[in-house]
Amino acid sequence: MSDETREHLEHSSRAPSVPALNRRQLLAGGASLLAMSVSSTLFDAHAEEPPDARDPMRVPGALPRSYGERSPFEKQTRLVAPTSSTTPLQGLQGIITPSALHFERHHNGVPAIDPTRHRLLIHGLVDHPLFFTLEELMRLPSASRIAFVECSGNSRDGWGEARDVTVQSLHGLTSTSEWTGVRLSTLLDTVHVQREATWMLAEGSDAAALARSVPLTDEVLNEAMVCYGQNGEPLWPEQGYPLRLLLPGFEGNINVKWLRRLKFGSAPFMTRWETAKYTDLLPDGKAYQFSLAMEAKSVITRPSGQQHLHPGFQEIQGLAWSGRGRITTVEVSVDTGQTWQPARLQEPVLPKCHTRFRLPWSWDGQETIIQSRCLDETGYQQPTRDELIKVRGTHSSYHYNGIQSWKIGRDGVVRNVYA
Amino acid sequence: MSDETREHLEHSSRAPSVPALNRRQLLAGGASLLAMSVSSTLFDAHAEEPPDARDPMRVPGALPRSYGERSPFEKQTRLVAPTSSTTPLQGLQGIITPSALHFERHHNGVPAIDPTRHRLLIHGLVDHPLFFTLEELMRLPSASRIAFVECSGNSRDGWGEARDVTVQSLHGLTSTSEWTGVRLSTLLDTVHVQREATWMLAEGSDAAALARSVPLTDEVLNEAMVCYGQNGEPLWPEQGYPLRLLLPGFEGNINVKWLRRLKFGSAPFMTRWETAKYTDLLPDGKAYQFSLAMEAKSVITRPSGQQHLHPGFQEIQGLAWSGRGRITTVEVSVDTGQTWQPARLQEPVLPKCHTRFRLPWSWDGQETIIQSRCLDETGYQQPTRDELIKVRGTHSSYHYNGIQSWKIGRDGVVRNVYA
Repeated sequence: MSDETREHLEHSSRAPSVPALNRRQLLAGGASLLAMSVSSTLFDAHAEEPPDARDPMRVPGALPRSYGERSPFEKQTRLVAPTSSTTPLQGLQGIITPSALHFERHHNGVPAIDPTRHRLLIHGLVDHPLFFTLEELMRLPSASRIAFVECSGNSRDGWGEARDVTVQSLHGLTSTSEWTGVRLSTLLDTVHVQREATWMLAEGSDAAALARSVPLTDEVLNEAMVCYGQNGEPLWPEQGYPLRLLLPGFEGNINVKWLRRLKFGSAPFMTRWETAKYTDLLPDGKAYQFSLAMEAKSVITRPSGQQHLHPGFQEIQGLAWSGRGRITTVEVSVDTGQTWQPARLQEPVLPKCHTRFRLPWSWDGQETIIQSRCLDETGYQQPTRDELIKVRGTHSSYHYNGIQSWKIGRDGVVRNVYA
Repeated sequence: MSDETREHLEHSSRAPSVPALNRRQLLAGGASLLAMSVSSTLFDAHAEEPPDARDPMRVPGALPRSYGERSPFEKQTRLVAPTSSTTPLQGLQGIITPSALHFERHHNGVPAIDPTRHRLLIHGLVDHPLFFTLEELMRLPSASRIAFVECSGNSRDGWGEARDVTVQSLHGLTSTSEWTGVRLSTLLDTVHVQREATWMLAEGSDAAALARSVPLTDEVLNEAMVCYGQNGEPLWPEQGYPLRLLLPGFEGNINVKWLRRLKFGSAPFMTRWETAKYTDLLPDGKAYQFSLAMEAKSVITRPSGQQHLHPGFQEIQGLAWSGRGRITTVEVSVDTGQTWQPARLQEPVLPKCHTRFRLPWSWDGQETIIQSRCLDETGYQQPTRDELIKVRGTHSSYHYNGIQSWKIGRDGVVRNVYA
C-alpha cells in the first residue's frame, strides 16, 4: 500500500470527527463570506454520522456493462399525468435535458413503432411523391441542432389562480435536446416540391393521427428538420421514435412526432388540431389561429415552488428561452421587482434553445419575492402577467409567458404567487 | 373520421405497392442526382414487404412514464472489455454522447457510492482544510461546459499492426458530455489555497484508489471543475458518480472519477498512475511523464471499419477534437491522400469538444482509401502515422493520434489500413 493510499484510508476512518474541527478553523480564520455561509448552515449534518460501514474503496467495483443506467440512488422523475409528463426543471443541470426526462405530451398514447416497417410519405404538390425508409433518410445529408421544444400549453396555470405548486408542475412542458436528422429543404429538393406549395401537412402515426399545417415560410424552409436522432441516439419513444418533425421555436405539437406523412398544398389543411384545439381565444371572443412561435420566457428553477431555503449564500439559477432566436439578457429581481440585475448566461447561448442563467445571492432570511425576465435578440421582452393579460385576456389555454414570481417566506418556504 | 384520417389509412394499406411506382417516376422524371442515388440502391428493400399487421395507428399507445427508456428496437451498445467499454462512434449522432453509451475505463471496477455518505476532502497547502458534502458543493456557484473526455490509451492499436476492426474498437474511448459542477478556482478560494501550492493530488474513492498529480497551471486554474452533473442529470456511475474532476483536454484518467480528495503540495506526488503507468516510452528509452494534453485527432466514423458500402451517394461523417482548443478545419481525402477537401463542421464548434464533420460523397464503386485530418486553433495539424512514429517511436501505449485510413474494397467492405 502506498503512503498516499494509507493516508486516505486513515482519513476515511477519521472523517466523522474532522468537520467540527474544520468548522472552528473556518470561523476563526477570517474565511471568505462564501465559505462562512456554507459552513454556517450545512456542517451540522455531519455531527451524528455513523462510521462508514460500506466503504466503496474496500470492495472491487462493478464490471463494465454494455448500456449504462443512472445510479440507483437517483430518483428524479417526470411528473406523470394521463396524457403528459413534465421535466423536473428544478433538478436539471446545464442545458441538455436527459432523454429519459424530456417532457411528453400525446393524444392517444406513445405508439410502438418497428423502424424497419416505418415509412415517411411525401406527396401532394411535388413532382416525385416518395416513400422513404429510415435507412434511406439516414443516407441523406444530415444536420444536428440543439433546440428546445415546448408544449403550447406549458405554464397554462398562469392564466388562472396562483396555486402552490412546483416549477416542474407549472413550467415543465419544455425540454432541450440535440436533434439530428435531414433538413426539410433537402427533402423538398429530392421530391421536387412545386412552386404553388405554400403549406405542408405533417401527420403522425400515433393512434390520434395528430396532424398540423405548417406554413412554408423562409424560417421553416431554413430551419425545419425531419429528425431521427436525439442526444446522440435514435429518438426516444416519447419524443417520436423513429421520426419526428422539428420546427425550432414553434409550439410543441406542430413538431409532429412519429412522423409518417408530409403533404404539400396551397392552403392550410384545417385539421382538428388547429381548429378545435391549439388556438387562442382572445378577449373579443375571436380565436387567434396558427400562433406558432413560442415567445420569450424565463423562470427561476432554483429556488422554486415548494423548495425550502436556508438563509445565506444561494446561487439563483434558471432557464430562459425564445422561439424567436437567442436570449440576450436575463435580469433577476430579489426585492419584489424594485430593482433588477443582470444574470450570467451559460455559454454557448444558442438560438431557440434553453439558456441557463445564474446569479449569486445571499438571502437575509426576510420575506421577499424573486423574479426573472428575459429579452431575446428581436428586442422582445418577457411581459409581466398584467401586461400579458391586458392583450390576451384570460380565456386562453396556451402561450402563457408572463414573469414568474416566487415568494420566499420567513420560514424559507418558496411559493408560487402573482406580483 | 376526418377526410385526412381516412386518406392516410387508405395510404397505409396501399403502402407496399407504391414505392415501385415512385421508383419508376423518379428514374423517368429527371430527378436530381441525389434522389437517383437514393433510389437506385435502396428501394428494392420494399419489394417483398408483407402487409402491415400491427399498425400503431389502430391501437392506443403507451401511457406516460416517470423515467423513459430507449425503444426496444434499438440495440446499440458499448463494446465491453474486462476493465473498459467503448462508445459506438459509428452510430452516434451530433456531438453529445448519451450517458448510457459514454466509454468507461476503471482499474478496480465501478464503485457503488451512496451520495449522502460521500465527502470531498480538500487539504494540504491550504489555510482551511475542509470536507464537503455533495449538498454543500451543489450550493456553491456552478458552471457547465460541453467537453470531450478521452482515455490516453484510445487508438492505441495504431502503434501496432493494422487489424481489421471497427471504429468503436479502435477509437471508442472518447465521449462528449455536458458537464456541470463547481469551478476548481471557486473551491480554492473557499479553502484559501497557499501560494506555495503548485501541484494538486486528485484521488478517487474506487477500490483502485486511482490518484493523479495535477499541475496548477493557468489552464487548470481557469478550466478545471469538480463535477456532479452530466448531460443534465447527476453523473452516471461509470463516469464517476457522485463526483469527478474535469480537466478539459487532459487525458482521461487524470479526470479522476469518484473524487474524494484534493491535496495541495509543491511537487508532483508521483503516484503509481503516473510512474508505472500513463507515461510514454520514447525511442531513446526515456519515458515522457505528465503528457497530459490530448492532441488533435479526427476519425471518419461513417463509413468505417467493417461497414458495407453501396455505390452512389454517401455522406461521410466523422468526429474531430483537440485537447488544446477548438477545431478549425477538417479535411477529407477520398483518393488515398492525393487530394483533400474541407468538410463542413457542425455548429456550435466548441473548444475541447467533439466536433462533427460532414462531406457529401458519391462512391463510384472503385477501390480507394478515405482519410481525415484536422487542424486546431493552436495551428497543430493531426500528423500522419509516419510523422507521429518518427518522433514517438512505437514503444508507446498512449496518445496515438495519427491519421486514420479506411480502405474501401470493390466489394464495399471497409477495412482499417495504414496508408
